[in-house]
Amino acid sequence: MTLIRSLSNQDEFIGFYLLKELEVKQTNGTPPKDYFDIVLSDSSGQLSAKYWDVSATDKETFFPMGLVKIQGTVHTYREKLQVKIMKIRKATAEDGVSLTEFIRAAPIRPVDLVYTIHQAMESITDAEIKKLVAFCVAKVEEKLMHYPAAKTHHHAYYAGLAYHMVRMLEIGDFICKQRPFLNADLLKAGIILHDIAKPEEMVAQMGIVSDYSVQGKLLGHIAMASSWITEAAIQCGIDLQSERVLALQHLVLSHHNLGEWGSPVQPQTAEAVALHHIDALDAKLQMVEDALDVLPDSESWTPMIRGLENKPVYRAKW
Amino acid sequence: MTLIRSLSNQDEFIGFYLLKELEVKQTNGTPPKDYFDIVLSDSSGQLSAKYWDVSATDKETFFPMGLVKIQGTVHTYREKLQVKIMKIRKATAEDGVSLTEFIRAAPIRPVDLVYTIHQAMESITDAEIKKLVAFCVAKVEEKLMHYPAAKTHHHAYYAGLAYHMVRMLEIGDFICKQRPFLNADLLKAGIILHDIAKPEEMVAQMGIVSDYSVQGKLLGHIAMASSWITEAAIQCGIDLQSERVLALQHLVLSHHNLGEWGSPVQPQTAEAVALHHIDALDAKLQMVEDALDVLPDSESWTPMIRGLENKPVYRAKW
Amino acid sequence: MTLIRSLSNQDEFIGFYLLKELEVKQTNGTPPKDYFDIVLSDSSGQLSAKYWDVSATDKETFFPMGLVKIQGTVHTYREKLQVKIMKIRKATAEDGVSLTEFIRAAPIRPVDLVYTIHQAMESITDAEIKKLVAFCVAKVEEKLMHYPAAKTHHHAYYAGLAYHMVRMLEIGDFICKQRPFLNADLLKAGIILHDIAKPEEMVAQMGIVSDYSVQGKLLGHIAMASSWITEAAIQCGIDLQSERVLALQHLVLSHHNLGEWGSPVQPQTAEAVALHHIDALDAKLQMVEDALDVLPDSESWTPMIRGLENKPVYRAKW
Amino acid sequence: MTLIRSLSNQDEFIGFYLLKELEVKQTNGTPPKDYFDIVLSDSSGQLSAKYWDVSATDKETFFPMGLVKIQGTVHTYREKLQVKIMKIRKATAEDGVSLTEFIRAAPIRPVDLVYTIHQAMESITDAEIKKLVAFCVAKVEEKLMHYPAAKTHHHAYYAGLAYHMVRMLEIGDFICKQRPFLNADLLKAGIILHDIAKPEEMVAQMGIVSDYSVQGKLLGHIAMASSWITEAAIQCGIDLQSERVLALQHLVLSHHNLGEWGSPVQPQTAEAVALHHIDALDAKLQMVEDALDVLPDSESWTPMIRGLENKPVYRAKW
Amino acid sequence: MTLIRSLSNQDEFIGFYLLKELEVKQTNGTPPKDYFDIVLSDSSGQLSAKYWDVSATDKETFFPMGLVKIQGTVHTYREKLQVKIMKIRKATAEDGVSLTEFIRAAPIRPVDLVYTIHQAMESITDAEIKKLVAFCVAKVEEKLMHYPAAKTHHHAYYAGLAYHMVRMLEIGDFICKQRPFLNADLLKAGIILHDIAKPEEMVAQMGIVSDYSVQGKLLGHIAMASSWITEAAIQCGIDLQSERVLALQHLVLSHHNLGEWGSPVQPQTAEAVALHHIDALDAKLQMVEDALDVLPDSESWTPMIRGLENKPVYRAKW
Amino acid sequence: MTLIRSLSNQDEFIGFYLLKELEVKQTNGTPPKDYFDIVLSDSSGQLSAKYWDVSATDKETFFPMGLVKIQGTVHTYREKLQVKIMKIRKATAEDGVSLTEFIRAAPIRPVDLVYTIHQAMESITDAEIKKLVAFCVAKVEEKLMHYPAAKTHHHAYYAGLAYHMVRMLEIGDFICKQRPFLNADLLKAGIILHDIAKPEEMVAQMGIVSDYSVQGKLLGHIAMASSWITEAAIQCGIDLQSERVLALQHLVLSHHNLGEWGSPVQPQTAEAVALHHIDALDAKLQMVEDALDVLPDSESWTPMIRGLENKPVYRAKW
Repeated sequence: MTLIRSLSNQDEFIGFYLLKELEVKQTNGTPPKDYFDIVLSDSSGQLSAKYWDVSATDKETFFPMGLVKIQGTVHTYREKLQVKIMKIRKATAEDGVSLTEFIRAAPIRPVDLVYTIHQAMESITDAEIKKLVAFCVAKVEEKLMHYPAAKTHHHAYYAGLAYHMVRMLEIGDFICKQRPFLNADLLKAGIILHDIAKPEEMVAQMGIVSDYSVQGKLLGHIAMASSWITEAAIQCGIDLQSERVLALQHLVLSHHNLGEWGSPVQPQTAEAVALHHIDALDAKLQMVEDALDVLPDSESWTPMIRGLENKPVYRAKW
Repeated sequence: MTLIRSLSNQDEFIGFYLLKELEVKQTNGTPPKDYFDIVLSDSSGQLSAKYWDVSATDKETFFPMGLVKIQGTVHTYREKLQVKIMKIRKATAEDGVSLTEFIRAAPIRPVDLVYTIHQAMESITDAEIKKLVAFCVAKVEEKLMHYPAAKTHHHAYYAGLAYHMVRMLEIGDFICKQRPFLNADLLKAGIILHDIAKPEEMVAQMGIVSDYSVQGKLLGHIAMASSWITEAAIQCGIDLQSERVLALQHLVLSHHNLGEWGSPVQPQTAEAVALHHIDALDAKLQMVEDALDVLPDSESWTPMIRGLENKPVYRAKW
Repeated sequence: MTLIRSLSNQDEFIGFYLLKELEVKQTNGTPPKDYFDIVLSDSSGQLSAKYWDVSATDKETFFPMGLVKIQGTVHTYREKLQVKIMKIRKATAEDGVSLTEFIRAAPIRPVDLVYTIHQAMESITDAEIKKLVAFCVAKVEEKLMHYPAAKTHHHAYYAGLAYHMVRMLEIGDFICKQRPFLNADLLKAGIILHDIAKPEEMVAQMGIVSDYSVQGKLLGHIAMASSWITEAAIQCGIDLQSERVLALQHLVLSHHNLGEWGSPVQPQTAEAVALHHIDALDAKLQMVEDALDVLPDSESWTPMIRGLENKPVYRAKW
Repeated sequence: MTLIRSLSNQDEFIGFYLLKELEVKQTNGTPPKDYFDIVLSDSSGQLSAKYWDVSATDKETFFPMGLVKIQGTVHTYREKLQVKIMKIRKATAEDGVSLTEFIRAAPIRPVDLVYTIHQAMESITDAEIKKLVAFCVAKVEEKLMHYPAAKTHHHAYYAGLAYHMVRMLEIGDFICKQRPFLNADLLKAGIILHDIAKPEEMVAQMGIVSDYSVQGKLLGHIAMASSWITEAAIQCGIDLQSERVLALQHLVLSHHNLGEWGSPVQPQTAEAVALHHIDALDAKLQMVEDALDVLPDSESWTPMIRGLENKPVYRAKW
Repeated sequence: MTLIRSLSNQDEFIGFYLLKELEVKQTNGTPPKDYFDIVLSDSSGQLSAKYWDVSATDKETFFPMGLVKIQGTVHTYREKLQVKIMKIRKATAEDGVSLTEFIRAAPIRPVDLVYTIHQAMESITDAEIKKLVAFCVAKVEEKLMHYPAAKTHHHAYYAGLAYHMVRMLEIGDFICKQRPFLNADLLKAGIILHDIAKPEEMVAQMGIVSDYSVQGKLLGHIAMASSWITEAAIQCGIDLQSERVLALQHLVLSHHNLGEWGSPVQPQTAEAVALHHIDALDAKLQMVEDALDVLPDSESWTPMIRGLENKPVYRAKW
Repeated sequence: MTLIRSLSNQDEFIGFYLLKELEVKQTNGTPPKDYFDIVLSDSSGQLSAKYWDVSATDKETFFPMGLVKIQGTVHTYREKLQVKIMKIRKATAEDGVSLTEFIRAAPIRPVDLVYTIHQAMESITDAEIKKLVAFCVAKVEEKLMHYPAAKTHHHAYYAGLAYHMVRMLEIGDFICKQRPFLNADLLKAGIILHDIAKPEEMVAQMGIVSDYSVQGKLLGHIAMASSWITEAAIQCGIDLQSERVLALQHLVLSHHNLGEWGSPVQPQTAEAVALHHIDALDAKLQMVEDALDVLPDSESWTPMIRGLENKPVYRAKW
C-alpha cells in the first residue's frame, strides 16, 4: 500500500486511506453533476482528491473521518499533486485496518506519556504545588490521551500535547541538574501547567483540531489556565495570596514571553525564564523534526515553516 | 500663601507645604555636612528643594509626608526651578492646615464617587452579573475611596480611580442610549471591573503610588481581575462555564486592546470594543485636562505627555 | 422574496436583485461559450453568481448596477456560496422595485442627516470658524447626501459619511458638556471637517466605492481637506496665519493620530485629542454593529473585521 | 587663537568666542553667589563654560549671541570638556572680529546659493510650474540667505537649507540626464519646494535653531508647503485641480517616504521617488561630511549620528 | 507580429513567442485529457496560455524556453488576460527569430556593460584594492554577461546586474566629484562588489531567475561576497587584517543598511553610506522606469510595486 | 574585609579593592583642586568613589587596574551609593592579595573549561569538520582562557566565553541524545564556533570589555567567524563549496536568528535551529543566575536586566 508521501505525478495506486475531509459539490455543466471534494490522509501526510461520478448511494455512504479503499491516479493541478479517484469503497472489518493507523501520532504510546506526566507530578516535593497541579491535570485527564498541542504550529497530532510535556520534562530535569539554583518543583509544575488548558481552548478529534472553542477565542489558554489555578487553590483550601499560587500563575501567564505573543506579563522569575526557553527549544525542534519526517527522500528542502520565521529547512545530502 | 505652580525664578516666599520626599545626604566638603534633599508639594504641583544647614534635631524632626512651614527662595538649577530653604518648621494644630489640602485629588468627593459606582452596580438588571461585580468591588471597597488610577499615566491622584470609573459610566450610559444593541449591564460591569484590581497592583498612599506590589508585577491587574471573577463565581455559586462569567472575563482581559499593551486577547464582543474605546477617550482627555490645569498662565505648551505619543499639548491664546 | 443573507446551500429561489458587478467571460470548452460572471446584491448583503447560457441579446440587455429578476439555485464553490442563475430578466416599471431598496444605507434619511450637520454648523458661535466650515461643506454639499465614509472599512454604504458625522456630533456634544474646558466650536468644526474631503478622495455610486480618485491616491483626504481650509481662508478673507485656521488644519491633519495611519502630525490640542478618540469610538462600534446586523441568526461569530485587529466578533446567546 | 575643536584637557587659552548661550545661576553656598552658565562656540564647534565670579556689572554686560574675548582653562567634568573662564570682556570694533566668523556656515556664500536656486527656477520650462515655485520661494526669500535645514539632523548651520537645495539640484540635473524619462521641471520644482516651509517651521538665528514655531509643531513643514502651493495656485490663477498643482503637492507631501517619517502619502510618481532618494543621499552624506569635518585629527570615530541608525562613522587611517 | 503588452481581450493573433514555462496537466473530464499550461513571453511582457488539444507528439515536441509560432485568441479569466492557443509549432531556422529577441534585456549590450565595469576596475588607483576586486569579478566574469540583478525586485532581466553596476558607477563618479572627501577607489570597489555574489546566489537562465541556490539560501549573497574577499586576500597575498580588506568587507556587509534588510552591520564609513544610498536611488528608479515601460499607453497607473512600499506609480497625462 | 555588595549607606570600612577606573579631575573651587574619580571593584560588584585630597605623588602612584588598600565611608549621592576615600595606599607583596581575587570569574577554572572544549572538538567524528573547528579555535586559543562572552549582556566576566561554550556543549549533548536525528558533529562545531570571533571583536582585560575593536564594529563577530571558516578551508585544503563548509558558515551566520539581531540569514538547518535556542536558553539563564548571585540577601528584586525584555527578576522568599 502506497503511503501518501511517496505518491508522485502520474502514479496509479490502490490502498486504504482516511477521508479527512469530504464535501459534496456541483460541477458547472448543464445539468450540474455532484462530485466529492476530498482530503485523503494517512500517517505520512495528506492530499486533496476529487471523485467525479457520485451516485445518490455514495452520498449516503461516505462521510468525513471514515476509512476507505481507493483506486486512483495522481496528477498535477495548480502546481500541487491531486488525486483523481477511480473507485472507492468503505473499509470493512475484514480489511483489518484501524483508524489510528491512518492518523499522525506521537512516537510514544499515549498511556506511557500520561504515566510519565503523572510520575513527574508525583515527584513534586512541595505538597501545595503538587495539589494545585493535580487539580488542573484532573480537569483534562482524558483529553491528555489524545489532544494535539496546536492546530498546525507544532505537535499537531494525536497525543502531541502530552508528548510535548514529556519532552520538556526531560529537558527540565537536565537543566535543573545543570543549574541547581532553579526550583525543580516549580519548573516541573510550570511545564505541566503551561499548556494544560489547550484541550479546552481547541476542539479536536483524533489529534486534528477543527476549531477553537468560544472560551478559547475569548479568554485564551493562558488566562484559562491561570483561572484554573485560582479554582484549584479555592477547592484545595490554599491561600489565594500565597507565594506558591502566585509563582504558578506567573509561570503560566508569562510563558509566551512577550505581549504580542499573548503573555500579559513577561517572565520575572528564574523558573519562568527557563520555562519559556525550554518550551521554545522543544517546539521549534519538533517543527523541524516533523517537517523532515514527511519530506520525500528526493527532496532537500521542506515547505516554509511558519513558526521558523517562515523559512524552509534544508536537509544536507551527506 | 504661594502655590507651587505660581513660583518662579528669584522668588522669595513663605508658606505651608507637604514634604513629599525627604532624604539626608552629605556634601563633598571636608568635613562633609549633612543636608536635606527634599521634594515639596501642594495641590498645584511639586518642586525639588535643598535645606543645607541640617542640625541633629532636624534629622529627628522632619520626615516624608509631613506638613511644614517654609521660608525659601527659588533659583534655577540645570534648567529647572529649585527651592533653597532658609527656615523650616513642622506645621502644628494651630496652623489649621490639613494633609488633604496639599495633595492633588479628583474634583468630586470620594464618598460621592463611590456612591455613584454603587448606584451603577445596583442598576445592573442581570442578577448574576450584579453579584459578580459586587463581589469584586467589595474586595477594594475601602481603597476605592482614595486610590489613584495609575502611577503617573492618568488620574494619578487621590480618588483618581473612582473618578475615572464614574466618568466612564457617564459615557457608557450615553453610548448605550445612542446604540441600543449594546448590552448595558455588560458595559457597566466592564467599566466597573476593568481596573478593579489596580488597588492591589499598586502600593499607594494619599493618592501617590510609591511602587507596584509583587502580585502587580508578576500577574498584573488584568490577570488579577480575571481571577477575581473566577473566585466570585465560585463563592456566589455561579457556573464557571456560564456565558456571563465568560463575558466579564473577556471584558477585563481585552480592555487594553493589544498584546503589546498587556491584553492576552483582543476585544471580540461589542461591549469589549466599546469598553476599550471609552477607556481610551476618558484617559486621554483626562491627561490633557490635568496637564493644562497645572500649566502656568504664561505658558502655551504643556510638557510632553507620555500617553499622548509623547507630545505636548498646545493651549490656544484666544 | 428571499434576502441574500438568508440564502443557504441548495436553496432554489426567485426574486429581485441588483447586478452590482457583471462581466462577460468565456468557458474553456471548444468552442468556448460566453457566460456572465456576476455579483448580486440587495440591502442585506451580496453573493457571486454565474449565468452560463448567455445569448447575444443578453449581452446587450444586462449591465452593472441594473435591477433584475432572477430564478436561481445556491451551491457551494471553494467553500463559499455561489448562485447558478437559471432565468434572468430586467426589472420593469410594473415590478415596482427601486434601486435604493437594494443597496445598503444609513438608518436615517440623508436629508435629515445633512439637515443635522447644517444645524451643528449654524450653532458654531465663532464667525470665522463657521465661515471656514461652511465653505468646505459647500464643496461636497450634494455628495454628502449619498457618499459612504469608506470603501470597506466602516460606514461603507449610502450616506454613511453623513451618518458618521451626525453620530460623532452627538458624542461631541456629550463630551463637551462633561468636560467644559473643551472648545465646542472647534470640536464641532473638527468633526464636520475631518473626513470632508472623502467624497473627492473616492469614486462612489449608490454608496459603493469603486475606486480612489487620482487626487485621493496622490494627496489623500487629509492633505486635501487641509488645502480646502487654506482655500476657504483666502476666499473668506481670513488671515492664513490666524489661530483659527491653524487650529482647524491641525484638527484635520492629526485626526488619524499616528504617522503610520496617515497623519503627518500628532494631536496636540485638547480638541484634536478628543476628535481622534470620538472618531475611533464611533467607527469601531459601527463596524461591530454592521457586522452583527448581517450575521445570520444561526451564527455566533461574524467574519474577521480588518479594523478590529482582524478579529471576528462574538454574539452571546442570551 | 585656538579653535574650540583643538582645545583639550588642561589647556590654558585666550581668544574670541561667541556666547551662544548664557544663563545666570546661583551656587549652593551661604550666601549663594551668582555665576554664568555659558555655551561658547566658534566655527569649529562648541563647549560649555562656567564663569564663577560674576559682578553686578557683568550681569548687565554679557548676553547670549554676543562676541567676547576670554582667558580660560579647560578641564574634564563628567567625562566632557568644560571651560573655566578666568577673564572675559566684550569684543569691540577695534578687535576686528565679526559674528559670522564664529558660526558654522555652508561652504558656499549664501548669495551664490540663492542665485543658483533662482537660476534653477528660471530654467523650469513649464510656465505654471515656474509661477507656483516662484510664489513659494518669494515667501522665504530673505530667510533662504541664512536658515539651516534642520535643528540638529543635517545641514544645521548658516545657509544650510539653501546649500542642501543647491547640492540636490546638482544631483537632480545629473539623474535627469541619466534617465531622460524623468520630468526635469517637476524634479527641480520638487527639490526647491520640498523643504521650502522649513524657515516657517523653525525659529532660527545665525543658522542656529532655537525652537519650532507653533505652526511648525501643529502643522509641520510638509503640510505647510502643501498649503502654500494651494495659495500660490489661487493667487496665480491656476486651476486647483490641475495636474501640475497635484504633481507639486504630491512631491512635497510624499518626500519623507513613509508615514512614520511624516509623509501622509507615499511617493507614487517617478519624480517623487527620485526626490526622496536624492534628498536621502544628500542629507546622509552631509551628516557624514559634517561629522568628519569636526573630528579631531587624533580620533578615528565620530560620535554616534542619529540620522545614521545612531551609528558613529569611522575614518580610515590610510 | 503583436507584442504581448499590446494584446487585449477578444484579440486574435499570430506570432512568435517564447515558451517561458510549460507544464502538462489533465482536465477533470472522463477520460481526462492532457493540456499544456503555458506562460508565453516576449521582450514586452508575459501572459498565461492554455493549449487544450495536446497530442502525444506535442508532448515530445514542446519544452520550456523554446521559441514557437502561435495562433491564438485572448480572453479574460479571473480578471486577467489569458491566451487560448489554437495552433502551435516550433520556430525553425527559416523563421529567422532568435531567443534573445524574446527576453527582456538591459538597454545596453552586455559586452559594453562588462567593458565599462572593467574600465572602472582598471581606474582604481590603489593596487591592493584593484587586485581584490579583480579576483572577485573573475569568479563571475561570464555570468556578468547575462545575469539579472534580482528575481523580481529590480533589474530582473538579461544582463540586469551589469546594467545596475554601470549605472551606479556613473552616479558614484558624479558624487565623488561633488564630494571630494569620498575615496573614489573604495566607492568604485564597493559598487562593483556589493552584488558580485548574486550570480552564485541565484539560478538564472536568459535573465530569468528560477530559484535560489543552496548557498544563496543558507549564506546569502552578502556573506558570500564577504568570504570571497577573504579568499581574494589569501590568494593575492594581502594581509587579512589590512584596512583595505576591512573596508571592502564592510562595504559589502553593510550595503543593505539595516539588519532586517539583511546587513549584519550598518554603514559606518563615508563610502558605505554613499554606497547604500546610490544603490537605493538606482534600484528604485529602475523599478519605476521598468514598470512605466511596460504600462499600456491607455493606462495611468502601474501595478503595485513591492519595492516601492507596495504602491503603484502614476504617469501624468501631460 | 567587606565585600562591595555588602556595603550600605553610612558604613565605614577598610579593605583591599581593585581600581577598575581612575581619572584625575578638578573641583570648581578657586583655585581648583585635583581629585580622583574612581570606580572600585571586587569579585562581588563595583562602586563609584571620590578621593578629594590628591597630592602630586598620588597622581604618579595610582593607576587603573591596580590593587589598593582603602579606608572609606559610604554615603548616598543622587540615589546611588558612593564611597568617600579617607586613606589609600597601593597593595604590596606582603599584603598577599592577587588581582584575580578581585574580578568576577566563571565558577570553573579556565584551564578546565578550555580542556573540555578541546575534548568536545576531539570527539567530532568528521575529519574535515574537526579540522575547520580546530583552525578557528587555534586563532583565539590563548584568549579563550580569560575572555568574557560580552561587554555587559551575559557571561561578562573572566573566562565567561569558555564557560558559556562548555555549558552549551552539555545541553547540546543532552539534546542530541533526546533527538538522534540531529547531527552531533555539526551541533558541537556550531557551539564552539558561534562566538569564536568575540575575542577579536572586543578589547578586554581581566574579563572586562573596555571597547569593541575596529573589526568588531565594522564587521561584527558573526561575519568575522564566517570569514575564518573560509580561511580555515583554504589553509586545510578543503573545498570552499563543500557541504561541510556551507553548514558551518550557516550555523555561525544564522545563530542570532533574526536580521534585527545581527544574523544576515535565518536558521534553515535542524542544527542551526538547535544552536540558536540552546544559545538563548543558556545566555538568558546565566543572566538570571548572575543577577541573583549579586542580589543582597535583603532584596527580592534584581535590577532590570536588558536581555530579559528589560525586566527585573524576583526571588521568592520561601
